[in-house]
Amino acid sequence: MQKSTESTDATSSLMRSIGAAAREASHALALAPRTVKDKALHAAAEAIRREAPAILAANARDVEAARATGRIASYIDRLVLDEKRVGAIAQGLEDIAALADPIGTVLADWTRPNGLRIQRVRVPIGVIGIIYESRPNVTADAGALSLKSGNAAILRGGSDSHHSSLAIHACLAEGLTAAGLPAAAIQYVETTDRDAVGHMLAGLDGAIDVIVPRGGKGLVQRVQEEARVPVFAHLEGICHTYVDAAADLDMARAVLVNAKMRRTGVCGATECLLVDRNAPDAYLPALVAALIEAGAEVRGDAAAQAADPRVKAAGPDDYGHEFLDAIIAVKTVDGVSGAIAHIARHGSQHTDAIITADEAVAQRFLSEVDSAIVLWNASTQFADGGEFGFGAEIGIATGKLHARGPVGVEQLTSFKYVVRGSGQTRPV
Amino acid sequence: MQKSTESTDATSSLMRSIGAAAREASHALALAPRTVKDKALHAAAEAIRREAPAILAANARDVEAARATGRIASYIDRLVLDEKRVGAIAQGLEDIAALADPIGTVLADWTRPNGLRIQRVRVPIGVIGIIYESRPNVTADAGALSLKSGNAAILRGGSDSHHSSLAIHACLAEGLTAAGLPAAAIQYVETTDRDAVGHMLAGLDGAIDVIVPRGGKGLVQRVQEEARVPVFAHLEGICHTYVDAAADLDMARAVLVNAKMRRTGVCGATECLLVDRNAPDAYLPALVAALIEAGAEVRGDAAAQAADPRVKAAGPDDYGHEFLDAIIAVKTVDGVSGAIAHIARHGSQHTDAIITADEAVAQRFLSEVDSAIVLWNASTQFADGGEFGFGAEIGIATGKLHARGPVGVEQLTSFKYVVRGSGQTRPV
Repeated sequence: MQKSTESTDATSSLMRSIGAAAREASHALALAPRTVKDKALHAAAEAIRREAPAILAANARDVEAARATGRIASYIDRLVLDEKRVGAIAQGLEDIAALADPIGTVLADWTRPNGLRIQRVRVPIGVIGIIYESRPNVTADAGALSLKSGNAAILRGGSDSHHSSLAIHACLAEGLTAAGLPAAAIQYVETTDRDAVGHMLAGLDGAIDVIVPRGGKGLVQRVQEEARVPVFAHLEGICHTYVDAAADLDMARAVLVNAKMRRTGVCGATECLLVDRNAPDAYLPALVAALIEAGAEVRGDAAAQAADPRVKAAGPDDYGHEFLDAIIAVKTVDGVSGAIAHIARHGSQHTDAIITADEAVAQRFLSEVDSAIVLWNASTQFADGGEFGFGAEIGIATGKLHARGPVGVEQLTSFKYVVRGSGQTRPV
Repeated sequence: MQKSTESTDATSSLMRSIGAAAREASHALALAPRTVKDKALHAAAEAIRREAPAILAANARDVEAARATGRIASYIDRLVLDEKRVGAIAQGLEDIAALADPIGTVLADWTRPNGLRIQRVRVPIGVIGIIYESRPNVTADAGALSLKSGNAAILRGGSDSHHSSLAIHACLAEGLTAAGLPAAAIQYVETTDRDAVGHMLAGLDGAIDVIVPRGGKGLVQRVQEEARVPVFAHLEGICHTYVDAAADLDMARAVLVNAKMRRTGVCGATECLLVDRNAPDAYLPALVAALIEAGAEVRGDAAAQAADPRVKAAGPDDYGHEFLDAIIAVKTVDGVSGAIAHIARHGSQHTDAIITADEAVAQRFLSEVDSAIVLWNASTQFADGGEFGFGAEIGIATGKLHARGPVGVEQLTSFKYVVRGSGQTRPV
């Protein structure tokens, strides 16, 4: 008991000082020109390439410990690094350096009748807290995206990737120093005391402006429930692909199989196929067969089961469920209205697609489905900052405030109004 | 005790049904074309002009009750309506109708190398909760701004303006009906049970997307502390005007007096004058004299007191204090660096101004002062959505997420990504 209180006090004090240092560093970062930020990123990339053996050795310790605690293969796969992955981390830093600097961009510029010139100018948010699980590359990605957008970062990785993250963070710190930026611009929370996360969610006395969780549903749920500061996140990606009666069957089949099966563990994977009840009779069997032949387990309603004997009966919980696996729910709906109603009820406002050749029907779907990303004749797996051209993303947000959809460097910024006058006073 | 529990249960149930109705109405509102929303606003304005006698009678009841409870004159002044003020409320609705419809605006539009066309399109946020005090006109303004931006509104006015707000709300409801919009698009919380506010702050089971408090510091503080949903607000407007050594004295005097004295009770009023220690000797006495002659009480540091015997000694609490009165704190600082440091320590990130003829010095101030609005050679009293050309505002926000500065119809919106393809699938 005594020990626990001491540990908590020490953690509380550590976290407060991390918060204060981050806030202090954020002022310098907000004013850092692009060249300086990019220099830090390039120097960090260089350090990561040079220190690859040390990073791999640290990672080997993490992997060994994770194996010893009986972690499953997919978990180990997210954790493990090899030379290629380390190279990709370094390349990722250079890619972020190559992005345009969002800070200082004039978003709007107008002059009032009284001669006041008003500009809306991009500025950083301030301090970003990132809480993540086993992927060590998040240390580099999240730190670099925060830096590029002029924000200080407080990184808290999972204990399973502790040594890997520390080794990568040392390279980021080296980059900051090389560029003359404060070391506190990217801090890694070194304590493995779980209370540290609670402190971050409470905002570190106002030092954290926004929290970004990266990880499984359990982590995101905890962050969303407990955070006293804004959160950019999505809890689930329950994505739908709706095949309309006016769809081209070949296109529908190709897009659907990609949307479900390209990668089944990503948040943009389609989890439910909706088929128009008025579609030609051949459509439902053809779509179901294509899914099954691509390796998916299909759980369908009566119509889907009638269309193919390999279809299992869907239970009520199969709709609105994020399988993150080679499983898909299938339902027949009454046209686009039925699809919109099903998505409103079961979706997660992440990403939903319609396949149709009818522009008016497509337009209705695009307008009425209230999701961060709505697609017409394209795979839901395009739900990704890189595919949007954002260069890199720190995650995908389903909230409607500030950031929605892929969260890239622009979404990590705020703005201010800069008003230039010549002595204007406001009339009474 | 029993009674209180019953009342709480009834309020809880009432608020849940208000939340559910607002969410339901928000779907219709999100799709309502401009003509329909404007029709509702015009019909509401017409109803307000026609029902002016009933509104004034309801207001007379409120004013009488407020006088009986001993409310002070400035409070009564905010509460009282007359024919001119009722006319202004109707005109306000028409002004909001005349604004461009923010919904559906394409904010960005680009095509990816694979042919996918991506648009970022403005959509409403959903449901706005507005909690306010004695000004009955907020009922109309807040309801209309929410409607114009395609959001459902849940309005909770102060008990002192209860009858006035109900009478105005009836006119808004008439307008909604005339346009064929759901009555739940703008709901007024009729119960005076104070628990209703707590329910709103908890978000009504996810039905409220954002809360906007309008009123004094006590209300805003409670909302910011207790709300479990995002809040657009400013707690205080501790605005500074910094007069640099390179300022034109006549301009500085005119802008400063306006910034402090045009209206002393608004959030954009300057509360502290910072004067460059290197300014010509004549500046400080001239600025202080101008303030005193305009009716201000000046509380200054040693230099200000030496400059004019009428200056009182400032206590430490006078810096960083929002007087909302004809009182100003004055401090001598070491140039623009000193001004920036003082504002970082004592300001509220609302609105701050520099008066100088030196563009480089101005640019430093505009870049480094981390406030929603920074002005060069203009009065801080321009901190207002109307003065920015937003047409109307629901308030001013000092947070950095989503809305910052004046909150007009555009700030009450979110966006979605609309992606149009021709069968694109994402490569592995």
